[in-house]
Amino acid sequence: MATDPIPLAQALIRCRSVTPADDGALDVVQRALEPLGFACTRLTFGPDDYRVGNLFARRGGGGPHLCYAGHTDVVPPGDLGAWSDDPFGGVVRDGLLFGRGACDMKGGIAAFIAGLTDYLAARPDHPGSISLLITGDEEARSVDGTAKVLEWMQAEGKVPDMALVGEPTSRRALGDTIKIGRRGSLTARIAVQGRQGHSAYPAQADNPIHRLVAALGPLLAAPLDNGSEFFPPSTLQVTGFDVGNAASNVIPAQARAMLNIRFNDLHTSEALTERLHAALRAAGCAYEMQAECSGESFLTRPGPFVEALSRAIARSTGVEPALDTGGGTSDARFIARYCPVAEFGAVGATLHQVNEHAPVEELRRLAAAYRAVLEEILG
Amino acid sequence: MATDPIPLAQALIRCRSVTPADDGALDVVQRALEPLGFACTRLTFGPDDYRVGNLFARRGGGGPHLCYAGHTDVVPPGDLGAWSDDPFGGVVRDGLLFGRGACDMKGGIAAFIAGLTDYLAARPDHPGSISLLITGDEEARSVDGTAKVLEWMQAEGKVPDMALVGEPTSRRALGDTIKIGRRGSLTARIAVQGRQGHSAYPAQADNPIHRLVAALGPLLAAPLDNGSEFFPPSTLQVTGFDVGNAASNVIPAQARAMLNIRFNDLHTSEALTERLHAALRAAGCAYEMQAECSGESFLTRPGPFVEALSRAIARSTGVEPALDTGGGTSDARFIARYCPVAEFGAVGATLHQVNEHAPVEELRRLAAAYRAVLEEILG
Ligand SMILES: [Zn+2]
Ligand SMILES: [Zn+2]
Repeated sequence: MATDPIPLAQALIRCRSVTPADDGALDVVQRALEPLGFACTRLTFGPDDYRVGNLFARRGGGGPHLCYAGHTDVVPPGDLGAWSDDPFGGVVRDGLLFGRGACDMKGGIAAFIAGLTDYLAARPDHPGSISLLITGDEEARSVDGTAKVLEWMQAEGKVPDMALVGEPTSRRALGDTIKIGRRGSLTARIAVQGRQGHSAYPAQADNPIHRLVAALGPLLAAPLDNGSEFFPPSTLQVTGFDVGNAASNVIPAQARAMLNIRFNDLHTSEALTERLHAALRAAGCAYEMQAECSGESFLTRPGPFVEALSRAIARSTGVEPALDTGGGTSDARFIARYCPVAEFGAVGATLHQVNEHAPVEELRRLAAAYRAVLEEILG
Repeated sequence: MATDPIPLAQALIRCRSVTPADDGALDVVQRALEPLGFACTRLTFGPDDYRVGNLFARRGGGGPHLCYAGHTDVVPPGDLGAWSDDPFGGVVRDGLLFGRGACDMKGGIAAFIAGLTDYLAARPDHPGSISLLITGDEEARSVDGTAKVLEWMQAEGKVPDMALVGEPTSRRALGDTIKIGRRGSLTARIAVQGRQGHSAYPAQADNPIHRLVAALGPLLAAPLDNGSEFFPPSTLQVTGFDVGNAASNVIPAQARAMLNIRFNDLHTSEALTERLHAALRAAGCAYEMQAECSGESFLTRPGPFVEALSRAIARSTGVEPALDTGGGTSDARFIARYCPVAEFGAVGATLHQVNEHAPVEELRRLAAAYRAVLEEILG
């Protein structure tokens, strides 16, 4: 009989771990892992007003070292009145497990531990070592979670040989999608300074709106690229443009814009930032720009790790996974600096939504798929 | 001895006729004109909460009929603490007459009446007729002033053969500039509707900022024209661009822009409005636009009237006036629909500013110039 992931998933959902709160979620994980022979280390990071808990658990010390990475924090439930059940109740109804985190990603963590339990029962003396990096700081700041734990792991000589992030990557059917990369994300805030004046006498003014339109026009006119081998085209979206001038006959002194670039492996945030500067300079703007990169793009090129992962998923689910690089950012961007990383997990159809839920059968099949991954990679 | 315009200018400045208030200003004008043989008609227009006084005064009934047009309302004084004198005190100091309206245009009205007094003393039986159209609704709405009086004049068979607007047109030296036309002004408010979405998935959204930038870019890239025989180039200024989106990763649903076009005699507001529609359509915008024309452009081509005016000014001031069409709008735009109209008045250096003032000697020379104009035109 396979281990059922549902009770553990329910126990996790019943912790109100709305980011960055933990509410006992890491304790639940730790209590599940210690009986399996995992040495657990709790790592707390962050400023006084934003303390974040993390858990590093490892079984065995040799190579190859496979690390499973996930997060126990969840996004807020939103409008409670719109939920059919308590978002922290872990109710099972009509074969569905309801609750915040059911698919992103408490259900996934429970499925991994269930698959891991069965794998270890069959292979107590498996080669290599297995670790789990579970953070409580993924959904908001992502500063004192995975990134900080990895620094600690490096200092401790515990960098894995490969990592599997358990985010809900499947699109329609379990196993249909592995993520082998993610686009990077760059946000820029621009303030263009002009010279105020009367619209009847524009020669005596300098219209910052005109300068900003002239700078943005060429950036928007042509795509940043046409996509690469594994990535869709990069995108640039202007998400804000504000002046705050009420008088139609007054040329304002300042105009502000905000934009977000999602970029593939053909770009770096540094080169894109320079491209923005060049466009602003070409339009003669006197400006200030704050550019912030929340993650460079990364790619784990298909190789032994990704191939083993694909084989295991195909064997277990009957679905041949596509190698994908779409969507937003995840903590895999931090791990990619240290080792090959890929992401595979449940169908994320309702993640971050009201009435988030995962089919019970899907989480059980995910547990079996994770067991197959361990078999394929560690033997 | 020439009649001194200063006492009348002071009496007018001492009326607190901040638009649309009158505070006795039209009474002051009427009391000055009646002894000169003018038949005065007071015309009150406007809604209950915005009643505006106007004065039509005429001497004689035959042709040619020359009408002098002006306004007794003034813009607010602004920061009272920044004034060196009471803006409604009419103080004369160091040869300067201080006060709101000193140059725009109570000083001008006083100068015309002083010049008129001396002209009539010398030519009590002049040919033709002289009228004054004085409104209290020029500085703000300009709805119930000159435009309405002209409708009344037309109904009464009193449309003049030519009109002289007494706005302060001189730039550096009295007499250096006559305005023979004005640009038109068109204000448009545009709201572009898009579809909200996440910046990581722009294909599922429709960014209204991108559409608006694409629509505005071509409008700003090329000038509307290169000027015409008597006009500078038309100008288009985007004076507002607002979205009000705080989240850098959210593509907003709507973007709004505001723009002001100052256009010469090569355009009509109707054709320009259609040009804006075409640019928005070409960018694929789903939009609403409100376009409002506060005045079409007009031009009084040089001919007998403008030539007589120029001769009189050159003879009286020693300065050869340039024929100009620059600057904002004036009530001359309404008069232009009925008869040839030109504008000539004081140096407007401090109009609408704190410490507005006019040199006493300049107002006296302006009175002499207006007398010369009457001589040149009526004989
Ligand atoms: Zn997640
Ligand atoms: Zn004026």
